Amino acid sequence: MSNSIGQALRFTLFGESHGPAIGAVLDGLPAGIAIDLAAVQAQLDRRRPGGNALATKRDESDTVEIVSGWREGMSSGGPLCFLIRNSDAHSSDYNADRPRPSHADLASWYRDGGKADMRGGGRFSGRLTAPVVAAGSIARQILLRRGIEIGAHLLRIGDIEDRPFGEPVEAQRFGALAASYLPVLDEDARARMQERIEAARASMDSVGGAIELACVGMPAGYGEPPFDGVESALSRWIFAVPGVKALEFGAGTRLARMKGSEANDPIAMAEGKPLPAANRSGGANGGLSSGAAIRLTASMRPTPSISVAQRSVSLSALSDAELVVKGRHDPCIVPRAVPVLEAACALCLLDLAAAFEGRKAFS
Amino acid sequence: MSNSIGQALRFTLFGESHGPAIGAVLDGLPAGIAIDLAAVQAQLDRRRPGGNALATKRDESDTVEIVSGWREGMSSGGPLCFLIRNSDAHSSDYNADRPRPSHADLASWYRDGGKADMRGGGRFSGRLTAPVVAAGSIARQILLRRGIEIGAHLLRIGDIEDRPFGEPVEAQRFGALAASYLPVLDEDARARMQERIEAARASMDSVGGAIELACVGMPAGYGEPPFDGVESALSRWIFAVPGVKALEFGAGTRLARMKGSEANDPIAMAEGKPLPAANRSGGANGGLSSGAAIRLTASMRPTPSISVAQRSVSLSALSDAELVVKGRHDPCIVPRAVPVLEAACALCLLDLAAAFEGRKAFS
Amino acid sequence: MSNSIGQALRFTLFGESHGPAIGAVLDGLPAGIAIDLAAVQAQLDRRRPGGNALATKRDESDTVEIVSGWREGMSSGGPLCFLIRNSDAHSSDYNADRPRPSHADLASWYRDGGKADMRGGGRFSGRLTAPVVAAGSIARQILLRRGIEIGAHLLRIGDIEDRPFGEPVEAQRFGALAASYLPVLDEDARARMQERIEAARASMDSVGGAIELACVGMPAGYGEPPFDGVESALSRWIFAVPGVKALEFGAGTRLARMKGSEANDPIAMAEGKPLPAANRSGGANGGLSSGAAIRLTASMRPTPSISVAQRSVSLSALSDAELVVKGRHDPCIVPRAVPVLEAACALCLLDLAAAFEGRKAFS
Amino acid sequence: MSNSIGQALRFTLFGESHGPAIGAVLDGLPAGIAIDLAAVQAQLDRRRPGGNALATKRDESDTVEIVSGWREGMSSGGPLCFLIRNSDAHSSDYNADRPRPSHADLASWYRDGGKADMRGGGRFSGRLTAPVVAAGSIARQILLRRGIEIGAHLLRIGDIEDRPFGEPVEAQRFGALAASYLPVLDEDARARMQERIEAARASMDSVGGAIELACVGMPAGYGEPPFDGVESALSRWIFAVPGVKALEFGAGTRLARMKGSEANDPIAMAEGKPLPAANRSGGANGGLSSGAAIRLTASMRPTPSISVAQRSVSLSALSDAELVVKGRHDPCIVPRAVPVLEAACALCLLDLAAAFEGRKAFS
Repeated sequence: MSNSIGQALRFTLFGESHGPAIGAVLDGLPAGIAIDLAAVQAQLDRRRPGGNALATKRDESDTVEIVSGWREGMSSGGPLCFLIRNSDAHSSDYNADRPRPSHADLASWYRDGGKADMRGGGRFSGRLTAPVVAAGSIARQILLRRGIEIGAHLLRIGDIEDRPFGEPVEAQRFGALAASYLPVLDEDARARMQERIEAARASMDSVGGAIELACVGMPAGYGEPPFDGVESALSRWIFAVPGVKALEFGAGTRLARMKGSEANDPIAMAEGKPLPAANRSGGANGGLSSGAAIRLTASMRPTPSISVAQRSVSLSALSDAELVVKGRHDPCIVPRAVPVLEAACALCLLDLAAAFEGRKAFS
Repeated sequence: MSNSIGQALRFTLFGESHGPAIGAVLDGLPAGIAIDLAAVQAQLDRRRPGGNALATKRDESDTVEIVSGWREGMSSGGPLCFLIRNSDAHSSDYNADRPRPSHADLASWYRDGGKADMRGGGRFSGRLTAPVVAAGSIARQILLRRGIEIGAHLLRIGDIEDRPFGEPVEAQRFGALAASYLPVLDEDARARMQERIEAARASMDSVGGAIELACVGMPAGYGEPPFDGVESALSRWIFAVPGVKALEFGAGTRLARMKGSEANDPIAMAEGKPLPAANRSGGANGGLSSGAAIRLTASMRPTPSISVAQRSVSLSALSDAELVVKGRHDPCIVPRAVPVLEAACALCLLDLAAAFEGRKAFS
Repeated sequence: MSNSIGQALRFTLFGESHGPAIGAVLDGLPAGIAIDLAAVQAQLDRRRPGGNALATKRDESDTVEIVSGWREGMSSGGPLCFLIRNSDAHSSDYNADRPRPSHADLASWYRDGGKADMRGGGRFSGRLTAPVVAAGSIARQILLRRGIEIGAHLLRIGDIEDRPFGEPVEAQRFGALAASYLPVLDEDARARMQERIEAARASMDSVGGAIELACVGMPAGYGEPPFDGVESALSRWIFAVPGVKALEFGAGTRLARMKGSEANDPIAMAEGKPLPAANRSGGANGGLSSGAAIRLTASMRPTPSISVAQRSVSLSALSDAELVVKGRHDPCIVPRAVPVLEAACALCLLDLAAAFEGRKAFS
Repeated sequence: MSNSIGQALRFTLFGESHGPAIGAVLDGLPAGIAIDLAAVQAQLDRRRPGGNALATKRDESDTVEIVSGWREGMSSGGPLCFLIRNSDAHSSDYNADRPRPSHADLASWYRDGGKADMRGGGRFSGRLTAPVVAAGSIARQILLRRGIEIGAHLLRIGDIEDRPFGEPVEAQRFGALAASYLPVLDEDARARMQERIEAARASMDSVGGAIELACVGMPAGYGEPPFDGVESALSRWIFAVPGVKALEFGAGTRLARMKGSEANDPIAMAEGKPLPAANRSGGANGGLSSGAAIRLTASMRPTPSISVAQRSVSLSALSDAELVVKGRHDPCIVPRAVPVLEAACALCLLDLAAAFEGRKAFS
């Protein structure tokens, strides 16, 4: 298991769905950085189950308990550790003998011989994204002081599409987007997305979707290519979010169909500075931020936990067997993943900023 | 810059397009592992410029010179370092004052104040993928002894499509695919792709494309989630390949449109073992290999170096300026990226295998 | 701050002396490893303040609270996180304006501008060694199943010396040593050490000492030189223990006075295996374990917290000022450091064992 | 093998004693840093064999060949890779069947089953310190621009002692020390050390010694404790230098005999700044630089390669056997290790400086 990521700002995740608590350690914050815990809690509330009729009925208060590294509104200089208690777990819903299709259950059985604690998905549960959101909120507060803002919306739920961000990205709408459980740019899309999710629930099924994310204000020249270039570093974070199965930067898969003369972003002077005059590259070239907004789209599979009968096996009998998944599940996980992706990006980009600053030691 | 990647098998890349040499260090190979250097050279020849009428006219012999870590056909126990000399560089073609659109030129100028050696793309050049191919060939030789094989084909060049791999993946065709400059499953696609590339060259333009890659024989349960899960670890490698702008696992972006009942891969007994009976997940669930083939599609932007006039700026004058890129460039980089992606995957998966084996120390 | 160490077995430390809790995350344990929590607690009790008349009067129960990664006697497969609550902190004893000589106070002030939480030593407190002991106890349980045992004794308290371990190391005495607050091989030394510590307390002073540690049963050939060779990897851990100021392997500083013919360890057959027939090298050559016991001596400075008046400064007035340290302190920290060093070695050596096993992926 | 070290400034070592070349990659230098290659060569010449009658007769020119990352006197922005060719290797001198006492030979045999290239010590050879010296020279040039200087002298050769550095450290003598093959503060010690080394050679034996090193100008508050605190980070580097068996900071082992009132460094105002008024702690408290000079002493074992007959075994026959080591060896390796330790410290401290600067991203 590789539960740590980041260099100067090191994030270490722990916890399991049905254990006592989940949480994280955020190491690298110097002492004296103002951290608004209410804002952390507000981000957590965006992701929280039980908060919305469209989500799982598992109801967790998801209150952050600071264990170390924070004192009277500021970082204390030591690693910041926080817990989120698990309270509303129904372990009896989990049938360890019948692996759920497209979950980690079967792979985990091969890996650990059935000895892992897989109740509620164990360490693979989407619940483990809560600590990412909490730590990411701290990163966002710091980035914001540097003029860097992150926003996202639902680009797709099943066959329902929102319009993409414009260019330049309309960052003034980030606040309103963050306030909505179904954040969209085209208000008409919201109701139709809601219908689609309710239909999935009604049929004991689930539905996938896609999130478009933008980061504005990132200076040009950040990134540690090749292996921690902007896209590499972000992708490592984003594919760690359960359910993400595709990631596109800028025009993404459409670039494969283009000619160079269509795909290239011209360079032009803007307010005295040379900058890209278009953004099909998604804000990064050669692994370095280009000065344009960082733009990416993450596509997520439908929640694999569905209540219709599915083909599985009995691991004890080694024979085919039918599975009906019990428990409380999200018919669509995508809306709750929006703050998670924002948080993951914030943690990643702040770490790249620290690497950039570190180079000043050499001159 | 982050030029190292991997834990047990650590790859460190060095070199610049117009410097004396490029190369890499591969650290972690125990002594006594048979390494066939002719096979390494053969993989390099697949990627080599000058070998095909469709590629750049830059002609490099790309001969591997072993500096350390290899002796009489075997790894010696120390880090393996090799060089590939640069010989056919035309530095005068590069105009440092006019950044090329959608290249790293402008971002690098912001980062380093114009002090970086950007001739021929400098450290951002696609030429830096040659050491990946060489090291990856060694990893492939080792994986093959464990029954793990990697193959790839051109899924798309511009608007021309090949058919995707079947399920199960037809690994028996990997050898023939690797032998072709334009590897396709549907022979009809090859000629049309060739035409499309030649048309791009004729119009002083370029064209993008997509590569589908499969890895068969990977046991179930490998991967170090969350942050080095199969998708995260592979994506970090693959987005480090210049030009890759989108990455999909399994059904990828199409999963966002599906219902759970459509997307889930049923589990069934096969030859006495429980395994996924479909593979929309692309061979990984929860960051662990599922036992099905690992399947991914990487979409690449068209080569940004095109010879038609483009809008740029003069960095010295800080004014808009027209740019006509000189030099020898690939009208389509995608075919040459096929062995690069295969190599990157091999290096990544072998490192995950070492992590898996390392756990045996605990029991 | 670098609060994480280890590759396959990654240890992340958190907490501050007067914050809510201290603890650690131990990542990399596969599922199903038996972990005896009572044994963990027993090791903690060896280090615990309040347990002995010779130690600080700060009384902490140091009870381990498992947050994740453990279930019904076994590792669950996720990262193991545990907390130890701080309960008996007297924050008013700490005078932030007058840095304590030979403590981190002044350096921290330069680093963080006085914004760090330095109450009780903050993140630099010796209290942070408790999570090392707890995690190390788990590592020791695993090593023991592989026949690897670690023991230590007080080689010196001030001018009072114990005799060193013999060769071969008398591992049969490890149990008795671990049961004593003043573990010595020469029983006569114990009473005299106790007197020396009591004399230090009586004079409101403190006294230093040295610990000799041995690890028996480590197979030959382990270690990841050069930069994680046995000595490098262990030294990084051991110098992280507050108060350690010197580290010697084998004959240590005395080797500098020797001739090669005196210092070399002859090789001879022993029970059918070639092994060192002496151990002046301390069980490692070239960064690899030699097959002999790993032997090291760590020298510790006297506790810098003493109650006699000392020269310091007022940081607010920027003028010289006298300091009288209040609070409850150990007149000799060395006995309590014994289980800490043992634990640090266990964590380090288990990680090297995992690296060794990982190499099997390549053959 | 762990041949990489450092975070922001990452050093990767490669090569074997009798392979084609040795060298290193230094990753993390931004573009445009002036690098004086003549100064690099000058440092290498300090370490070079063949340059002095007291050293091995192996004669290597040790000329640095830059492969990447350097152009016209400046770093180019990519990783700097350089080679040093091996030219004067006598491989026939090495008897693979009879492991040399106190060398890595036997441990390597256990590890790799005799398959490693151990000619001339292979990857364990002291020759691998040459790339450390070359890279370290670059680090020293950069540190010097920040007012940080490193110097060292021979504190001991066998039973011959030099006086230690004074407090404050006499940095004005660093230049003269670096110019001498036997750098000493007390001129009388030099001739006696020379005699002792010549006597060792005459008797086909070797002799150990100790090096005292000081770093002046390091600001207070640098270091990444606990696990990359000043002492931990330096010790990891220094124990990677072959032959080092003990490391002491400040008063080192003598601190174990002291009382706190003797060992503590008072704090006093000096030129308007609060600073330690003594330096028994060796320039670091709690893993942070204290503002005083960093001071350490490394003790080195005598060269294990001696020409008198020694007890060993035949690995093929698995029986005791006598060994007479052939080849050309240093009767005392300590003088040649002086520039190596200086270089290792420079690389380590520059990396800590980058971590310090990186924190500015957070405020």
